[in-house]
Amino acid sequence: MAGSTFGTVFRVTTWGESHGKGVGAVVDGCPAGLWLSEEDIQRYLDRRKPGQNRYTTKRSEADRVQILSGVFEGRTTGTPISLFVPNEDQRSKDYGNLKDVYRPGHADLGFDKKYGFRDYRGGGRSSGRETIGRVAAGAIAAKVLEELGIRILAYTCAVGPVSCSPGNFDEAHLAQSRLNMPDPEAEKRAEAYLEECMRKGDSSGGMVECIVDGMPAGIGEPVFDKLDAMLGQAIFSIGAVKGVEIGDGFMAAAALGSENNDQYACTVPEPSVQEDVQKDTDLCHGTQQGRHGTEECVLPEGVYKKTNHAGGILGGISDGSRIRIRAAFKPTPSISLPQQALGRDGKLRSLEIKGRHDPLIAPRAAVVVECMTAITILDLMMRNTGARIEFLRESYRR
Amino acid sequence: MAGSTFGTVFRVTTWGESHGKGVGAVVDGCPAGLWLSEEDIQRYLDRRKPGQNRYTTKRSEADRVQILSGVFEGRTTGTPISLFVPNEDQRSKDYGNLKDVYRPGHADLGFDKKYGFRDYRGGGRSSGRETIGRVAAGAIAAKVLEELGIRILAYTCAVGPVSCSPGNFDEAHLAQSRLNMPDPEAEKRAEAYLEECMRKGDSSGGMVECIVDGMPAGIGEPVFDKLDAMLGQAIFSIGAVKGVEIGDGFMAAAALGSENNDQYACTVPEPSVQEDVQKDTDLCHGTQQGRHGTEECVLPEGVYKKTNHAGGILGGISDGSRIRIRAAFKPTPSISLPQQALGRDGKLRSLEIKGRHDPLIAPRAAVVVECMTAITILDLMMRNTGARIEFLRESYRR
Amino acid sequence: MAGSTFGTVFRVTTWGESHGKGVGAVVDGCPAGLWLSEEDIQRYLDRRKPGQNRYTTKRSEADRVQILSGVFEGRTTGTPISLFVPNEDQRSKDYGNLKDVYRPGHADLGFDKKYGFRDYRGGGRSSGRETIGRVAAGAIAAKVLEELGIRILAYTCAVGPVSCSPGNFDEAHLAQSRLNMPDPEAEKRAEAYLEECMRKGDSSGGMVECIVDGMPAGIGEPVFDKLDAMLGQAIFSIGAVKGVEIGDGFMAAAALGSENNDQYACTVPEPSVQEDVQKDTDLCHGTQQGRHGTEECVLPEGVYKKTNHAGGILGGISDGSRIRIRAAFKPTPSISLPQQALGRDGKLRSLEIKGRHDPLIAPRAAVVVECMTAITILDLMMRNTGARIEFLRESYRR
Amino acid sequence: MAGSTFGTVFRVTTWGESHGKGVGAVVDGCPAGLWLSEEDIQRYLDRRKPGQNRYTTKRSEADRVQILSGVFEGRTTGTPISLFVPNEDQRSKDYGNLKDVYRPGHADLGFDKKYGFRDYRGGGRSSGRETIGRVAAGAIAAKVLEELGIRILAYTCAVGPVSCSPGNFDEAHLAQSRLNMPDPEAEKRAEAYLEECMRKGDSSGGMVECIVDGMPAGIGEPVFDKLDAMLGQAIFSIGAVKGVEIGDGFMAAAALGSENNDQYACTVPEPSVQEDVQKDTDLCHGTQQGRHGTEECVLPEGVYKKTNHAGGILGGISDGSRIRIRAAFKPTPSISLPQQALGRDGKLRSLEIKGRHDPLIAPRAAVVVECMTAITILDLMMRNTGARIEFLRESYRR
Repeated sequence: MAGSTFGTVFRVTTWGESHGKGVGAVVDGCPAGLWLSEEDIQRYLDRRKPGQNRYTTKRSEADRVQILSGVFEGRTTGTPISLFVPNEDQRSKDYGNLKDVYRPGHADLGFDKKYGFRDYRGGGRSSGRETIGRVAAGAIAAKVLEELGIRILAYTCAVGPVSCSPGNFDEAHLAQSRLNMPDPEAEKRAEAYLEECMRKGDSSGGMVECIVDGMPAGIGEPVFDKLDAMLGQAIFSIGAVKGVEIGDGFMAAAALGSENNDQYACTVPEPSVQEDVQKDTDLCHGTQQGRHGTEECVLPEGVYKKTNHAGGILGGISDGSRIRIRAAFKPTPSISLPQQALGRDGKLRSLEIKGRHDPLIAPRAAVVVECMTAITILDLMMRNTGARIEFLRESYRR
Repeated sequence: MAGSTFGTVFRVTTWGESHGKGVGAVVDGCPAGLWLSEEDIQRYLDRRKPGQNRYTTKRSEADRVQILSGVFEGRTTGTPISLFVPNEDQRSKDYGNLKDVYRPGHADLGFDKKYGFRDYRGGGRSSGRETIGRVAAGAIAAKVLEELGIRILAYTCAVGPVSCSPGNFDEAHLAQSRLNMPDPEAEKRAEAYLEECMRKGDSSGGMVECIVDGMPAGIGEPVFDKLDAMLGQAIFSIGAVKGVEIGDGFMAAAALGSENNDQYACTVPEPSVQEDVQKDTDLCHGTQQGRHGTEECVLPEGVYKKTNHAGGILGGISDGSRIRIRAAFKPTPSISLPQQALGRDGKLRSLEIKGRHDPLIAPRAAVVVECMTAITILDLMMRNTGARIEFLRESYRR
Repeated sequence: MAGSTFGTVFRVTTWGESHGKGVGAVVDGCPAGLWLSEEDIQRYLDRRKPGQNRYTTKRSEADRVQILSGVFEGRTTGTPISLFVPNEDQRSKDYGNLKDVYRPGHADLGFDKKYGFRDYRGGGRSSGRETIGRVAAGAIAAKVLEELGIRILAYTCAVGPVSCSPGNFDEAHLAQSRLNMPDPEAEKRAEAYLEECMRKGDSSGGMVECIVDGMPAGIGEPVFDKLDAMLGQAIFSIGAVKGVEIGDGFMAAAALGSENNDQYACTVPEPSVQEDVQKDTDLCHGTQQGRHGTEECVLPEGVYKKTNHAGGILGGISDGSRIRIRAAFKPTPSISLPQQALGRDGKLRSLEIKGRHDPLIAPRAAVVVECMTAITILDLMMRNTGARIEFLRESYRR
Repeated sequence: MAGSTFGTVFRVTTWGESHGKGVGAVVDGCPAGLWLSEEDIQRYLDRRKPGQNRYTTKRSEADRVQILSGVFEGRTTGTPISLFVPNEDQRSKDYGNLKDVYRPGHADLGFDKKYGFRDYRGGGRSSGRETIGRVAAGAIAAKVLEELGIRILAYTCAVGPVSCSPGNFDEAHLAQSRLNMPDPEAEKRAEAYLEECMRKGDSSGGMVECIVDGMPAGIGEPVFDKLDAMLGQAIFSIGAVKGVEIGDGFMAAAALGSENNDQYACTVPEPSVQEDVQKDTDLCHGTQQGRHGTEECVLPEGVYKKTNHAGGILGGISDGSRIRIRAAFKPTPSISLPQQALGRDGKLRSLEIKGRHDPLIAPRAAVVVECMTAITILDLMMRNTGARIEFLRESYRR
């Protein structure tokens, strides 16, 4: 059992369920001396907060984080950082009727089979609120990474059938987007699509893309703990994720080697070549070798990769170019349309779920993807500090 | 560092590189009393062996496994099982010219940045031969799972743009297929496509699908060690994998909740409903609720899921129906077409790779996917045995 | 870094420092369905509470535990149990003068060298208050073990030069003993010794003995995770422990094989033989094959071990007889006698520590030893449930 | 199960049993670039080799190590180092008669209860030969530590009732001592004692002391993974160890705080003070603040600790002075005197063990203690490299 801890050197343990006293995380192994305030963490939590607009659950909670330990006079001490977010707006009675029903698309049956019974209120441990602990912990990882020059950004890149276009990446728009989409035009279509879903009592799937800039080369372990393998676990561990891609992902399966290999090039990027490659591809499935990836690639002066189909990871190890991850989120399973559910008594019953639920998961999940990515990368970077005997020697010469 | 171990209770550690003395694995935590012979393992290794036909590398090795420990009088003792496969057909001189070059699509640069230098012969630790240890270990896991009534099968479901069709699943054909494809008709097209690739000195991507039948409900931990998350790490840790899907995977991101939720149903399956859903979908992206999944679902007598878009996993926990995983493999990066590579000296150079390489990875990787799946599932099942206080009590009443 | 988690399947993570907002623990992997109340845990915490009598620090705190998650309708759900004990009676200003001083016998210098700075208030993370998390978690482990028929008891067996005598083991006295000693006569002498220490501003070392009855045979892994090895880590991880023994411990180093081997015997114990062995030995160093150990040994009907020099563990695996552990605690390092301390500036300074400190550690540490023992044993028992293929088969036949 | 791996970042997995094909270890996480030859490892193995003199088992094996992976052109590559030592001189038939008997002092019963059956030949997995893997792996750790200026030495400090005297520490003698004792005079008495034991068919307990010089301050994690806690697990995991002490160990339990605290001092050591403390104490239980510890203590120029009762570890963290560990080894349980053993059938039977066995364990175990200490320290040092944010920043500025 015991599967609530992630990471080896930078370790995060989350706890809590939807309708208990609160949710939280313990971060063990954070380097000492980092300036850290509750505000640093709150900024991230606010991005996943419910009740922000009409596309998020009506449940409204402040979700204020408290740092209970591990920070002294404004800086981390190197000892465990305990983070706590009390639950506030709980309406357990909403869920009483779910006690003896296994909802389609939910883990209800699995929990009962596993544990013999379950906390049926609001999904219990498998509630989206569990991700609060991840985001609080990930905010700390992200702050450490920032100190190392690494920046992570995740956003909605598709809502149902509507995808963003890489040519329309607008960071200013993203900052105030209701669906967390960087492409204003796509967002408009996505909103129309969602309105229709909501009108019908239905929900929609979506996709999140996450990019990492400023990544040093050499991160990730060659075999089981490859950078992409650890990201795979990290992202798949977010509820509702049904697929994960690195770089071109599934498109690579249909490609030729001569197309998919990222060749090296020299001095000045040839934009014409690049544009050819990218033309007609959308943000989610296109090759996205922007200025960023090129500039930050830890290659000899003036050398870069012409393309980045690999998404910055080769053989499980970062190559210094932009990392690109995509995650497919299934539609919110709680819908108000009537469905055939299963009773604990083994009898079928019709179910219409009336609670407060987001019509899609992706927009609020983006920050969770970002945070899980941050935790994964920082942990692998910290594991990597002794990779060479000369580095180890240096460490102890300090 | 140290990323060569996978699993918590059933733990596998692999070692070895392409051109060292051999490759191997240590399996720790295998239950005692399992009948196990070298032949049980060899059967799996033979499935990934090179030199089997014109679509696999010409390198030909017997890849005979030796059990060095942990088996006594034909049965496992519960102590570590050390597995060893000597390397035989090494031609290191083939690789001398790669010493100072970073090949496109390979981890060469990453290794050098990480460790300061690398074993440049045949990919070193990131060679496909590393998977021998996984397969040897996975064969043991698969044998234990068989004892528990669980059967895992993986096969090529796409070669480049050619996909298998679920309607054409032919197990007899699969058993002797050169590309490890269950659809004879698709295989024919795939072979034509590959011949063209090889003629040009190019390579092709591909896709592997893996199904698990007989799975009990309740396996997988609710948060970070979800069944799909651990599968995510396991499958992404196989070289060349760029994407992983569970169930409908990326298709779920474009679906409505009402489409994607698997509703429960009673007594006799209604084939008409199902066929509607499956029509025009291929094996790789379709919903594949066959007889199998239904029969083996651990649901009350006569109850089943109408569809299995979830691929047998909800909230990270198995629901008793068929598990379905898909992995996208990028094209073999070693191609004989000229490419721009990077020298360790920072200068570009043109590279034509002449070695012995498979034109695509998927067919031989299928058994690796199968084995990683077996290891993952067995480990989570063994972790699960104490999930309830009554089970624990029972265990010690024996 | 990250060393705040203990256990593999039943995992405990503690957090918190002496003068932060509180201390706590997260217990992950507890079996579901255990009846658990805050009162169950409070009973254990009360045993380590300060301010109980004149031999414990004057710091007085209620140390009331709150269960924040993982329990639903009175029973554990199988998900993480978050335990929180707020700090109350903090007088940080007491410690301001210690900011720039490295106290003899304390970890001050180590923390500064490791982390660059430290939370100097009351020992920070290395305060005795850290053990609150262990005790809260251990209370849960102990409750599970009780369900399995296993009972653990720890007590002070020596105070400075004064040792308890095994012949004088008085459980009724122990229940109300001020020094947690089972031998009333020895306690009287220990109190006299302590009074003298306290009068001089000095402190005393002590010893804790822990016994485990009802242990099944077969627990513990053969190599690195031997039962005694895990107990070794667990007990040494308690602050101030400088030595750990199993069974006869250091006495075994001076013994002959013919003396130290525990021979098997039949039907009726021969008390005369036993008494010979035990005569003139004290509780701490004697052989303690009581009725208990014999009765509960999982041996064939009527067979038992004549002696128990091994302390119930052979080759790292329990043999079904009583487990006996002893831990040596150094004297409380905070004494009010003047000592030469080291300033952060590298200059020596004379130091008299005036705070509120126990004159000895053992009595309040006994419950910590008990709890760490419980956690260790439960974790190894839960890891053991799949040790045999037939057990595993049975688990999934349920 | 699965307890054959030790370490978090520098990880060692051992495998193999007494009478299988061989024994070995996989070392994962060794820094790349270390010059390493089989000879480096062989030197350590030769120190534990049987058949060296009349006090060791007559079993004579070359115990030649083979490096199967992880070393390329003489240097470690950072990938797993697989080490293999074939078994040679096996006489399984010697053990046939032990098949159905549980020997006193052995783990036989525990193995049978745990696994249902056991490899009864020569102790199987719990044979002393299992330590070959530890020594081979530890030799690598020791070589890395040497590069960091850390030197570890272990030796026999007591044989039965005969203890070495700290005043008689003679390194030249130690190098050719038959019992691995640094005190020539004590060795003479120990040999006489052993001859008597052997004449009677009996065996003797013994004690090993291990010292670590050149240790930097700040190593070890504050809570569960304290330096002494990890050493506790490491040393207790060696077969036959029944007690472990750090520094003054059990003597500290009888001491006053004013005696046990190590005060700081200045410039020139005051030998008179020290001698007072050490007078009449033997090597095993005395305080051993030699020139070494003082010189290498990472304290401000001219400052040192007057004494080292703590054995170099405070609060689980190294303080820069000499680390001192002692381990008590029980007598070899295999003796030729008649003993009452237990049959698998539940009936008692008289047993005289005739095989080839060392009359005491300590001398050959010293190198195992040394190697487990090396592995433990290196692992904790590698885990420590990211302890401070400024160190982490530096690591990635390289």
